[in-house]
Amino acid sequence: MKLNIAVLSGDGIGPEVTKEAIKTLKAIAQEFDHTFNFKSASVGAIAIDETGEPLPDATLDLCKHSDAVLFGAIGDPKYDNNPNAKVRPEQGLLKLRKELGLYANIRPVKAYDMLLSQSPLKEENIKGTDISIYRELTGGIYFGEKQLSEDGNIASDLCEYSREEIERITHLAFKAAQTRQKKVTLVDKANVLETSRLWRNVVKQVAEDYPDVVLDFLFVDNAAMQLILNPKQFDVILTENMFGDIISDEASVIGGSIGLLASASVGDKHAMFEPIHGSYPQATGKGIANPIASILSAAMLLDHFELHEEAEMVREAVEKSLQLEITTPDLNSKNNTITTSKVGDFIEDFINNPK
Amino acid sequence: MKLNIAVLSGDGIGPEVTKEAIKTLKAIAQEFDHTFNFKSASVGAIAIDETGEPLPDATLDLCKHSDAVLFGAIGDPKYDNNPNAKVRPEQGLLKLRKELGLYANIRPVKAYDMLLSQSPLKEENIKGTDISIYRELTGGIYFGEKQLSEDGNIASDLCEYSREEIERITHLAFKAAQTRQKKVTLVDKANVLETSRLWRNVVKQVAEDYPDVVLDFLFVDNAAMQLILNPKQFDVILTENMFGDIISDEASVIGGSIGLLASASVGDKHAMFEPIHGSYPQATGKGIANPIASILSAAMLLDHFELHEEAEMVREAVEKSLQLEITTPDLNSKNNTITTSKVGDFIEDFINNPK
Ligand SMILES: [Mg+2]
Ligand SMILES: [Mg+2]
Repeated sequence: MKLNIAVLSGDGIGPEVTKEAIKTLKAIAQEFDHTFNFKSASVGAIAIDETGEPLPDATLDLCKHSDAVLFGAIGDPKYDNNPNAKVRPEQGLLKLRKELGLYANIRPVKAYDMLLSQSPLKEENIKGTDISIYRELTGGIYFGEKQLSEDGNIASDLCEYSREEIERITHLAFKAAQTRQKKVTLVDKANVLETSRLWRNVVKQVAEDYPDVVLDFLFVDNAAMQLILNPKQFDVILTENMFGDIISDEASVIGGSIGLLASASVGDKHAMFEPIHGSYPQATGKGIANPIASILSAAMLLDHFELHEEAEMVREAVEKSLQLEITTPDLNSKNNTITTSKVGDFIEDFINNPK
Repeated sequence: MKLNIAVLSGDGIGPEVTKEAIKTLKAIAQEFDHTFNFKSASVGAIAIDETGEPLPDATLDLCKHSDAVLFGAIGDPKYDNNPNAKVRPEQGLLKLRKELGLYANIRPVKAYDMLLSQSPLKEENIKGTDISIYRELTGGIYFGEKQLSEDGNIASDLCEYSREEIERITHLAFKAAQTRQKKVTLVDKANVLETSRLWRNVVKQVAEDYPDVVLDFLFVDNAAMQLILNPKQFDVILTENMFGDIISDEASVIGGSIGLLASASVGDKHAMFEPIHGSYPQATGKGIANPIASILSAAMLLDHFELHEEAEMVREAVEKSLQLEITTPDLNSKNNTITTSKVGDFIEDFINNPK
């Protein structure tokens, strides 16, 4: 297969971890005789520094003409703590998702047996957890109209959803559930919010097309508790943008390391793959960033193009590295000298010399 | 002291647990020679059944003319799962908070040593956790304008905040921090939301009046992770209404039982005290509801009127009941026959016969 992959490695540790994902994909291309072409472009704080824009036109154009986007991380503290900054790195990511029509963010959350002891949760509560969170990504309050009164004393954000926005991701979630444990939990706040009541109505209607899937409902505040009390109760979680942001980050602690968690953002025409962790500026350039999430996002990319055998080999290589503790210091109890690139080298070597 | 206390016990297990809180307050009144007058009124689903309104005028009137409100719980599944219901029990609580000007919800989250083993989190991570969450209660998206298009295809909710709404709760949070570990963490989403940026600006300005208190900031998605990864890092958490709803319910799992957690909702003129748990209709009438949260909310009521010795005696009685496992089945490993009212009897007896 020939794939043109846009590489947007971004800020902080983004470039370091993305480099290892590319190393992995190149090894896969060599081993399975594919042609993967990589083209890089800037996004985030580094793009603001270079062009004044968090998502330069050239970057967006590259993404639109690529088969997939491999994304690193964005964000820089010089923007986070300045409430008056006019341009923010995160706007680049929000705009990219919108422009590419990436309306669904998919986050697998899995408790790896070999890392159970690293979890802040008790092992017996989490062993076997396997959740897939479907978060709506281009609607809701993050994209609604924002206002600040002239005197600076009143601010507002509008949360808006249409039937169509809800329907398309709901179909994806139910289709995924059909290949899993056949359960969808809609997380909302239908006892208070009009948008949540629309979600319930629409999701109930879509559910009629999937009689083999059980649908249930959970208020977001209760869901925030249940994820910690009993995460094994969940199969597919479906939710709106902001609730999904909070709930999926909360769920990310279950497995013991967010350095392992990948995500996909998909639309009807485009798809983007990225680690869920941020740009961790304090770790930049030290060789300590864990590249596994970025490498697993490359595996999700392979799966997206139905290269399942290839994806499976990447995941095997990752599991092997965890078993042998060929891991960065965040996961390594014995050796704190294994760098980001050494982990990538091990994965590359495993793929090129499969046992 | 003479206090007129409005009792709004509400739905589900509300009446059962509130009865034990009243028993406790009566014992305190007798022991310390106070006069507490209790008057009851209906709220929630039961009030809808009786009057068509979740907060009848007579109930609101009683509350306005009382020194404090002792609240039970509201909610009934026949409304929760009907997105087309015009009147909802929760509207009663929302309206009451608004009408009484209860703009700050205060939730202590404490890990009791004797219950550490009940927590879903690892004991070493939570031992010593002592957080006080200040949630803004009358603004934000829960109260903003709601719209549903005529064809039912587009819904919206408006999140709005004014400088004044932010200032008044911020002062309460900083004053509380001065009596604690002198740290306030503002939880927001200032990288995306205009309202969050207003919160940051206003809170930074108010913080200048409290030079002995350290202020830091956390995005709500990160906060949802940090509460599980390292809850001991927090002292006072300050946040807007919806984030506070999610974060404080999430935090409630830390201590191992939400049956223990009380809350206060305060304004400039009125104050209300309630357990944080819901109406648990499935437990109603079985004598298994844990009354401790309601009893501890009575202790917060006593503290509010500076009856600190009295409040401390209630808390001692509660700790004693936990030590001796005079507890309802949810907390009892040895005996599942101790009922709601037996726990209240023990607390009453402890107060009337202090050791
Ligand atoms: Mg997030
Ligand atoms: Mg809640």
